Amino acid sequence: MADLHSLVRSLKRSNDSKIVLFVADGLGGRSPVPGGKTYLDTALTPIRDALAGRGVLGGIIPALPGITPGSGPGHLGLFGYDPLEFNIGRGVLEALGIDFELGPDDVAIRGNFCSLDDAGNISDRRAGRIASEIGAALCKKLDAITIPGVEVFVRPVKEYRLVIVLRAKGLAGEIDDTDPQRTGVPPLEPVARDDASKKTAELCAEFLRQAREILKDDHPANFLTMRGIAKLPHIPTFEEVYGLRAAAIAVYPMYRGLARLVSMDVLDAGTTLNEQIDRLEAAWKDHDFFFVHFKYTDSTGEDGNFDAKVKRIEEMDAAIPRVTALKPDVLIVTGDHSTPSKLRSHSWHPVPTLLAADTARFDGSQSFGESQCRHGGLGQFEAKYLMSMAMAHAGRFEKYGA
Amino acid sequence: MADLHSLVRSLKRSNDSKIVLFVADGLGGRSPVPGGKTYLDTALTPIRDALAGRGVLGGIIPALPGITPGSGPGHLGLFGYDPLEFNIGRGVLEALGIDFELGPDDVAIRGNFCSLDDAGNISDRRAGRIASEIGAALCKKLDAITIPGVEVFVRPVKEYRLVIVLRAKGLAGEIDDTDPQRTGVPPLEPVARDDASKKTAELCAEFLRQAREILKDDHPANFLTMRGIAKLPHIPTFEEVYGLRAAAIAVYPMYRGLARLVSMDVLDAGTTLNEQIDRLEAAWKDHDFFFVHFKYTDSTGEDGNFDAKVKRIEEMDAAIPRVTALKPDVLIVTGDHSTPSKLRSHSWHPVPTLLAADTARFDGSQSFGESQCRHGGLGQFEAKYLMSMAMAHAGRFEKYGA
Repeated sequence: MADLHSLVRSLKRSNDSKIVLFVADGLGGRSPVPGGKTYLDTALTPIRDALAGRGVLGGIIPALPGITPGSGPGHLGLFGYDPLEFNIGRGVLEALGIDFELGPDDVAIRGNFCSLDDAGNISDRRAGRIASEIGAALCKKLDAITIPGVEVFVRPVKEYRLVIVLRAKGLAGEIDDTDPQRTGVPPLEPVARDDASKKTAELCAEFLRQAREILKDDHPANFLTMRGIAKLPHIPTFEEVYGLRAAAIAVYPMYRGLARLVSMDVLDAGTTLNEQIDRLEAAWKDHDFFFVHFKYTDSTGEDGNFDAKVKRIEEMDAAIPRVTALKPDVLIVTGDHSTPSKLRSHSWHPVPTLLAADTARFDGSQSFGESQCRHGGLGQFEAKYLMSMAMAHAGRFEKYGA
Repeated sequence: MADLHSLVRSLKRSNDSKIVLFVADGLGGRSPVPGGKTYLDTALTPIRDALAGRGVLGGIIPALPGITPGSGPGHLGLFGYDPLEFNIGRGVLEALGIDFELGPDDVAIRGNFCSLDDAGNISDRRAGRIASEIGAALCKKLDAITIPGVEVFVRPVKEYRLVIVLRAKGLAGEIDDTDPQRTGVPPLEPVARDDASKKTAELCAEFLRQAREILKDDHPANFLTMRGIAKLPHIPTFEEVYGLRAAAIAVYPMYRGLARLVSMDVLDAGTTLNEQIDRLEAAWKDHDFFFVHFKYTDSTGEDGNFDAKVKRIEEMDAAIPRVTALKPDVLIVTGDHSTPSKLRSHSWHPVPTLLAADTARFDGSQSFGESQCRHGGLGQFEAKYLMSMAMAHAGRFEKYGA
């Protein structure tokens, strides 16, 4: 089969339609008790109104049946990029998550401060989970490392986690982790998996030599390990694929970074959902496509807090009238994965999805619960097809073949 | 795209969960009359109880929409092996079906006794459907054939059908059938489709020369044709792919053979379903995964006997409490294909499927009929994804990406 993107590129056409992709992170779950209601099964009035007469529901399979995605693959799928084809390294995601603007030549590395004993063996892989302020101070010391011919950046993430970025021409990221994944043994050396990565592996080793010296008196954080060493993947831009001028309105750095990966315009999103909608209104005339990311439906699910998740869903629901007032030609409300509060983690369960458009074959759905979505007219489908559905409903696809 | 097995291998993790895959062969059908009930639409109490509060239903597409599988591809799909990628030769299946333990160097051939007229043309492709005893006696004669450097095995299957196995290093199975598929013409010569199979084609020709001499006075079975010449496919083991210690509990040789293909431990299953469940109980602590195969839902369907199939489904239903009493973390009840008694054969219709687990997003289904399965929360999906669903619900997958 011709790949999806080739097909999409060959069929895309322009018009003045507007598409809103409203992603409620971790939307969808399961009832905490057998036979009980899910979050969404509670009545949500504005979303119900958005459905009326022009909405159709369905369930999105984030990657493949049974596969639980991280936020990276989850969002790439929603953006129409096959998450099994476009793989984002852990180091890259970590850099995106702190708003570090990675360039195409950068190698990004997730670092973990760790504790070494006198024999040089790892006694704690997370350095006693040092406070974030301590981690930040140590990163400042490491940021002073210089290696000839390379720019070195060291940035704190949280507690014992940090990001290291090496910037120079000719670097590559096929290098094994130095975290041995257990204690009582020394950290591993950075080993290149291909010839192109050998020079970079040597740079990593040089960084670690200097870091060992700098950190030697900073027990419990007297060394660090490297994980998920990676470069930015080669990803075609959203505009190339869809011909859409896309804006991302996300509060959290990770999601701004994911939008930047596909070259969306990343707007200042403020800090609250209402501020995000302000930005949406302000950007309305200059863009065709709007990715609005609402974080808190996921974090409340990961906390296992059912009631808090319900409140966040109600907050999202309350924001919908301001979105529909803009009269988007296509409004999609979905999530990048489910986060059942019972599991306290991402899951593989299909994500409730609403698509409202004048061109939708509306299915008579009256509310946006998991059970309604199960029977919805969109059926269950892999996330990578969602953008094709958006384009179709926006009248932005030519017919395929004659 | 990364293939499914690479993904599964990279995500799998171990825990102490137990998974039961209960395959009712040929489960699922259609009502014999318009608007009537199907087999499963009749009330099945224990299965209904298994559903309560932790079950979710769906429909499995054995291979692709509209494609009717044989038992081989049907089961490979259920085991998570793409049945379009892993192709089992007809000769291999026939050998598995008589419990012949094929080795990796063996070439297996399905033979059909046939009748030749005086001119050497085929007058009956099935030798007048000779009785099984006659076929067995003829196989005994053919088993005496010797070819230097090769072990030759000839085994009866049923009536005019037999299996020939050639065992030697360096054999290959890319050889055309010698059955011309019509009468009034001579049998074809065994022709190699590649260089690696030329030697084996000569061995087949030598076998046929000797067989013609041995059988010359045994009209109507005075010769045989060769079909489905094949070696065991290269199939990664179940444990490699899933990290599961798997046990197969099947009464019929074919299904034991299919389980052996993916290197499950094939247990002595007894002869009745109750004996199979005895073995399940006995093996419980030593395995993680249990494939239980119940044959008679298929054979009663192939007989076109609706009432008998209902009785067999009730027998299966009655065995379920002993399975659920073991408290499997994931219980799946499904079939390898549908066998509507009206069609008296395998069919392409999606197979009713139940998955019960604490981690399921249960869908409120109250019974296990075809109609309930059509609306179930699992949707309709290709069989090759079933094992991923089992692994996910058993907590045996890491998250994909960060």
